[in-house]
Amino acid sequence: MVNEKMYELGSKKSTIRTIFEYGQKRAKEVGAENICDFSLGNPNVPAPDYIKDAVIDIMNELPPQAIHSYTVAPGKPEVRETLAKDINRRFGTHFTGANLFMVGGAAAAITISFKALAEAGDNFIAFAPFFPEYRCFVESTGASLKVVPARTEDFQIDFNAFEKLVDAHTKGVIVNSPNNPSGVVYSEETIKNLAAVLEKKEKEYGHPIFIIADEPYREIVYGDIQVPYIPLYYKNTLVCYSYSKSFSLPGERIGYIVVPNEVADFAKVFGAIAGAARVECHVNAPSLWQLVVARCAGKPSNIAPYERNGQLLYQGLKEAGFTVLKPQGAFYLFPKCLEEDDYAFCERAKKYDLLLVPGTDFGCPGYFRASYCISYDTIKKSLPLFKKLAEEYK
Amino acid sequence: MVNEKMYELGSKKSTIRTIFEYGQKRAKEVGAENICDFSLGNPNVPAPDYIKDAVIDIMNELPPQAIHSYTVAPGKPEVRETLAKDINRRFGTHFTGANLFMVGGAAAAITISFKALAEAGDNFIAFAPFFPEYRCFVESTGASLKVVPARTEDFQIDFNAFEKLVDAHTKGVIVNSPNNPSGVVYSEETIKNLAAVLEKKEKEYGHPIFIIADEPYREIVYGDIQVPYIPLYYKNTLVCYSYSKSFSLPGERIGYIVVPNEVADFAKVFGAIAGAARVECHVNAPSLWQLVVARCAGKPSNIAPYERNGQLLYQGLKEAGFTVLKPQGAFYLFPKCLEEDDYAFCERAKKYDLLLVPGTDFGCPGYFRASYCISYDTIKKSLPLFKKLAEEYK
Repeated sequence: MVNEKMYELGSKKSTIRTIFEYGQKRAKEVGAENICDFSLGNPNVPAPDYIKDAVIDIMNELPPQAIHSYTVAPGKPEVRETLAKDINRRFGTHFTGANLFMVGGAAAAITISFKALAEAGDNFIAFAPFFPEYRCFVESTGASLKVVPARTEDFQIDFNAFEKLVDAHTKGVIVNSPNNPSGVVYSEETIKNLAAVLEKKEKEYGHPIFIIADEPYREIVYGDIQVPYIPLYYKNTLVCYSYSKSFSLPGERIGYIVVPNEVADFAKVFGAIAGAARVECHVNAPSLWQLVVARCAGKPSNIAPYERNGQLLYQGLKEAGFTVLKPQGAFYLFPKCLEEDDYAFCERAKKYDLLLVPGTDFGCPGYFRASYCISYDTIKKSLPLFKKLAEEYK
Repeated sequence: MVNEKMYELGSKKSTIRTIFEYGQKRAKEVGAENICDFSLGNPNVPAPDYIKDAVIDIMNELPPQAIHSYTVAPGKPEVRETLAKDINRRFGTHFTGANLFMVGGAAAAITISFKALAEAGDNFIAFAPFFPEYRCFVESTGASLKVVPARTEDFQIDFNAFEKLVDAHTKGVIVNSPNNPSGVVYSEETIKNLAAVLEKKEKEYGHPIFIIADEPYREIVYGDIQVPYIPLYYKNTLVCYSYSKSFSLPGERIGYIVVPNEVADFAKVFGAIAGAARVECHVNAPSLWQLVVARCAGKPSNIAPYERNGQLLYQGLKEAGFTVLKPQGAFYLFPKCLEEDDYAFCERAKKYDLLLVPGTDFGCPGYFRASYCISYDTIKKSLPLFKKLAEEYK
């Protein structure tokens, strides 16, 4: 009567959603202040004041039709020009507005990219740990997803395993750095190696293999960490960007895809992206938000609260005896569980009202994800609980 | 290298787009004031002041996170509750927020509905003349589109032809009233007959057949015309609504799907809609706009300019000798061409810088669409030109 696959996708709750709903229920029993919910990746830093100012200024300055009319499918030309200039200023690239296709957020950007590229029998490759929706997005295009197991010592790329997975039907690889869930940033060495392997494989198979760079966390990095801009290293790169995290606008669905001139057959790729956006009925990215992000291009993200949170949680987990990498970017830590079964470990953590997400959901069993885009006080409150949890394993 | 089907969909310009671009080019040659462009359906009535006020008030009153955070996939519960109440007030229905799924505009609403319902081998039926993107949206789900030829005397439904087209694999029919491109509103009699035929066919084939009611023009109606609210007449109805026309917000992508409790297996249908939204990566409808439409629910649309335009164009075309129905709703007239070949006719009209869209594009050869959501002065200027054009055929 309905499409069963759609029903399943829409009615089966993700683990993250299930944990979150458990937390809501539990909060009613013991009080929200007693729940340490590390499950969701919803930015807790409010959108900066310049966003509010831009919205109000635009509404006051421009006539309604200049704000709310349909835009051409790839987005307002002057917006795309402004954003291209800002990218060029930051990374030394040479884009124009013609290289940008505005879309409703990063989920749309990557799905549209997969759909534009996927031909019958194609596969895409993700590196564990990875955002679980990738599977749903890739498979919805008819392609399959292959997963390179995690290199758990540093969560960079296991190139031996990767090389074995690439085959004649590999259309692209998904790079998500800063990474959800590991909190790691791929080093310049990793990106250079990746580019070298892909160039070799492109020659071997005689067709382009794309990097789809999923970059919503690009600005959320700590200390002197640099996030290599992948088009500078590899020509067949599509950059999928969203303002969900940098401007704390996840509900507004605004971002873009960069298609460099250097990609194999720019016109074909850009045209296919337009076609994929059309069938996914992304008529145009929300028009007011196109104007807002253009006005705010280049303004700084407020990452200080995340940095402070990440440090606190990292130190606390270390002290409690967890194996965990120092936070580099995004707002996640991905520590090793204290037993092999990550589901069992996260279940046990619930006893202390610590809500964690099992690594298996991200293709990396034996680990757990802790989102630290929550209040500092909650993290402070959680640290003795993590200690107690760890005691159980001693 | 890319998906050729997507490339074709993204690079092949629609007739409407081609005509519009011709107009832009021609405007540079002879001046925009000399082009009578009836090609596009972009509302020319600006968004009402209450929209601007609502946006500014929300930005000033609410903390950023209450505005810009992810919402649950079907939309903010309090927004859906408010909109459900407004629908109930207007139509005497008994919806709650649980019956609404907020989406990014009507194109998304109908595509998500098709995708939720379509199983292998299914077909959907449209009534000519119809919005050409329906074909793209239906076919993208793997289903096929069947078209009932137009009943040109009044552009209601040809039930004989319709009954012959319904078969065991018909999953739904698309009803678009007020209609783009005919400007006609389906009468209560038409809706009652449609419901009766579908109920009969449901019994015959032993499965539900859905009406997907595409209703972005519901508020744009003239005189004492009533637009029957289809769920009151037929239980397996999904209403796809958008604020693009009623609030003149086409660029912002905000609307909803109503899933009545009465549909066969509500939980299955609502779940499948959630799944389809997920794979089409409509994470949530833009969150600020959810709040805005809830604040403005029930406020009147400014249809006076459209009514005035429609009357002027209708009278002028009648006087010039065209066969055309009186405007009932939306902002289109769909007159008969003065020769059989509608492409040839529209080509000839270009000589006078009258830009019209051939009816063949809407599944109804021999007619043309004239959008009158343009300036009154342009319409005034066009009337002697239509007369001259008609002279050529005498």
